[in-house]
Amino acid sequence: MTTIHGKNFLAGTLHVTQRTFSVVSPLDGAELPGRFSLVGMAEVDRALEAAAEAAGPFGRSSGAKRAELLEAIAEEILNLGDTLLERAGLESALPAARLTGERGRTVGQLKLFADMAREGSWVDARIDRAQPQRQPLPRSDLRRMKLPLGPVVVFGSSNFPLAFSVAGGDTASALCTGNPVIVKAHRAHPGTSELVAGAITRAVARCGLPAGVFSMVHGEGSVIGLALVKHPATRAVGFTGSRAAGRALLDAAASRPHPIPVFAEMSSLNPVFLLPGALAARAEEIADGLKGSMTLGVGQFCTKPGLVFAVEGSDFGRFRQQLAGGIAAAPAASMLHADIRKNFEQHRDALLAVPGCDVLARATAVADAGKTQAAPLCAVTDAATFLRAEQCMEEVFGPCSLLVKAADLAELRVLARRLDGQLTATVHGTPEDLAAAGDLLEILAATAGRVIVNGFPTGVEVCHAMQHGGPSPATSDSRFTRVGSAALERFVRPVCYQDVPDSLLPPALKDANPLGIRRLVEGVETRA
Amino acid sequence: MTTIHGKNFLAGTLHVTQRTFSVVSPLDGAELPGRFSLVGMAEVDRALEAAAEAAGPFGRSSGAKRAELLEAIAEEILNLGDTLLERAGLESALPAARLTGERGRTVGQLKLFADMAREGSWVDARIDRAQPQRQPLPRSDLRRMKLPLGPVVVFGSSNFPLAFSVAGGDTASALCTGNPVIVKAHRAHPGTSELVAGAITRAVARCGLPAGVFSMVHGEGSVIGLALVKHPATRAVGFTGSRAAGRALLDAAASRPHPIPVFAEMSSLNPVFLLPGALAARAEEIADGLKGSMTLGVGQFCTKPGLVFAVEGSDFGRFRQQLAGGIAAAPAASMLHADIRKNFEQHRDALLAVPGCDVLARATAVADAGKTQAAPLCAVTDAATFLRAEQCMEEVFGPCSLLVKAADLAELRVLARRLDGQLTATVHGTPEDLAAAGDLLEILAATAGRVIVNGFPTGVEVCHAMQHGGPSPATSDSRFTRVGSAALERFVRPVCYQDVPDSLLPPALKDANPLGIRRLVEGVETRA
Repeated sequence: MTTIHGKNFLAGTLHVTQRTFSVVSPLDGAELPGRFSLVGMAEVDRALEAAAEAAGPFGRSSGAKRAELLEAIAEEILNLGDTLLERAGLESALPAARLTGERGRTVGQLKLFADMAREGSWVDARIDRAQPQRQPLPRSDLRRMKLPLGPVVVFGSSNFPLAFSVAGGDTASALCTGNPVIVKAHRAHPGTSELVAGAITRAVARCGLPAGVFSMVHGEGSVIGLALVKHPATRAVGFTGSRAAGRALLDAAASRPHPIPVFAEMSSLNPVFLLPGALAARAEEIADGLKGSMTLGVGQFCTKPGLVFAVEGSDFGRFRQQLAGGIAAAPAASMLHADIRKNFEQHRDALLAVPGCDVLARATAVADAGKTQAAPLCAVTDAATFLRAEQCMEEVFGPCSLLVKAADLAELRVLARRLDGQLTATVHGTPEDLAAAGDLLEILAATAGRVIVNGFPTGVEVCHAMQHGGPSPATSDSRFTRVGSAALERFVRPVCYQDVPDSLLPPALKDANPLGIRRLVEGVETRA
Repeated sequence: MTTIHGKNFLAGTLHVTQRTFSVVSPLDGAELPGRFSLVGMAEVDRALEAAAEAAGPFGRSSGAKRAELLEAIAEEILNLGDTLLERAGLESALPAARLTGERGRTVGQLKLFADMAREGSWVDARIDRAQPQRQPLPRSDLRRMKLPLGPVVVFGSSNFPLAFSVAGGDTASALCTGNPVIVKAHRAHPGTSELVAGAITRAVARCGLPAGVFSMVHGEGSVIGLALVKHPATRAVGFTGSRAAGRALLDAAASRPHPIPVFAEMSSLNPVFLLPGALAARAEEIADGLKGSMTLGVGQFCTKPGLVFAVEGSDFGRFRQQLAGGIAAAPAASMLHADIRKNFEQHRDALLAVPGCDVLARATAVADAGKTQAAPLCAVTDAATFLRAEQCMEEVFGPCSLLVKAADLAELRVLARRLDGQLTATVHGTPEDLAAAGDLLEILAATAGRVIVNGFPTGVEVCHAMQHGGPSPATSDSRFTRVGSAALERFVRPVCYQDVPDSLLPPALKDANPLGIRRLVEGVETRA
């Protein structure tokens, strides 16, 4: 097994500092191998200065070169073999099958963005040719394409130690578009982060790219995280985590002399609406599906269904009975780290402290604190309580959902209108249900980034049509997605070239279209 | 001539308040007809509540209906005839020919966005169909399109009282994409604003759309402007103006419980680099062109070339001599309003107070304060002073430019790297110049939204390939443009529909593609 060295990756150089930390396994509380160096401001400067220096050459590198980099990263990650999966399992308590799948997702994402980089049409090239004879004024030759923003700071997230951490979707989409990346490793999986950072560093070197293209540091979020966001060379930020931490980064970015975009994914309750016909036909089946979705990964998904709304009646009663049985029988399981468990218990208890919120069911299994375990729970309340108590709209990150009983369909729509921004919103309904529900789907489309019919919100496909992002507080900017090919739009900006000679134009904009990409020429899409 | 009533437009209703203001003509200081009602918080609430109520139905209206609205607005504006041009002339001191041209631009923009709305492909529809047999997990049917954000607050800008004010590009792109608009009228042209607001209000009524689709209010920026940005129903903001005012709005938006995007265009010096071969061949011609560009519209364009860099030598000397002659002979002319004139004089004087900054030439014409006039001026300095004195990087809004003498091409590149974010950057050079200048174009593309060769930055084409937006402080988010068809991207967000039955999908996402729009199906562009 590869030894964990605990060093920071500063533009290809391994760097040790005096202050270190270690990490314990959530599985048993035992300290894991490795003392990790905490960086200070000097290291932040070094990483950002190297990134700023690399931004020019990397930004001008070809799509083929960036595809080579992304594929090399995928290969180096796979080369880590079981070493990576084992360390990730010890640090995150996620089971081997899940981590193997997540590694596949990580590698798949890298390859998707490699394909995007190689194909090249993402630059959204547009050409409006000169019209020297136009009256009253001639038109210049105008050509527009998207260029990288510059150094992107990525915060690894704890619940996807591979797919949304060091070499995750943020890093892949930033590198695809030619932006150097500086990762702030998540403190819960520093060893996993180190292994992946080593893979990226090797890939950067193999491809002959400037070492400043990638750095990874360990440091306190409240100090080093903020310093990374405030650094003058930083041009954009990707973050996933709590609403409070996200807000702190947003505020720091907004207060810079030159504010920068932050794409922060923070909080979502992913409401599920169960309509009467669906409950009549499939109460038990939906209850089983919901139990599976809310307990998947110990409820540690941003898309975990945390709210369930239905019209009160015997079918909803059957649903609750089935769900209660499923919850009671569900095992306790280890969460990602002790802070997440503490946070889960606090938010769960705050919800249960709301007058009118009652426990529907708890797992009979005991949650072992020594194993960082949580036990699933469902609470139940009525519409009046939900509308009154703001606590009901606070995300409980972990295996807990709140059921809300409504009087009728009209009240379901009132509840839907009251929701804050969400990543997803789900409706279970027959065709007749959906017709009778009036504008429910439209209300939900105005509130959420993804609207699901007769499914469950967990499981976020990596594809072109995915939207993983919603109105605040789900994410900081609903105009962008964090998952899928469109995620790269977060890290690019258009530049228009006016009357620039063909020989000096970037290849994407040259007359001959040497890259063969899709372009908008005089308003018409063409590859000519 | 239509009587100016001075009322506010609250969702189709004319509204009077107790507190009023009037406006004087910059041409002679004479008070113009009309006492304009200043709104308070109650009116802000009324406008936003009506907008929020209209957002659903307007957001679901067809592209054809929105095209009808935009074309009706264009028609109603043209129906105002000379009344509009005369009032705009009195309020802005802009000459009739310019205002006639600007009206044409305004109408042209409305029609461009009408075409975009009718054609419909702007929704960027993407379809990834279900793969029920996929291993290890089936894929759901996923379909993504862009939907309106909701009520957009637009701040009219004083330097384009038609094209970037009440019915300007921000309003047109917001309405095109189905967002209700609330305009905060610019205090310098309230009568012009009233006439155009009347035209929009009539168009909304003609089209049978909810009156809440449009409101326009008069109010103090520091109170009502901030209240509009902070209102919980506001979903996005478009602003053009000073860096200080833009920053205040950005800060207000960022400090909301749910932050919203602000597209603010604030400050740009639009640097021009004159390379040796171009100066040798065309010193006098470039000087004349620069003089024309910097004095066009009394220097009151966001794209006015405010900085000129060249290698010192006899050709740059010839250029300066020609420019000095042109400046000396240039007339004084009325600015848009007294505050802009005061601001111009303050910033100009602050620049001249920098040790090492000297006057190259002043217009011999006297600037008549009674006519709100400014006289053109050029200053000159050296690279060392420019690099030392931050004042040299402050925009002087008005007919003033600063020339900077560099020692050689290498120093030109050092100067280019030191620039803040810009809307535009221009290079004059022969093919040999451009080859010798190394990565100058690339440095400028990293700094500006538009890079121009052998032209001048004033004149911003409305087309698909335009990018009018640059890194901070030029605009608040370089990922978006304020001019051209892509401007609508500021006010939309994607939503993904998962397994939604075809009958319930929006037309843009239905299998049959009833709108005939361009879509990305399984990653391939098609209209099928």
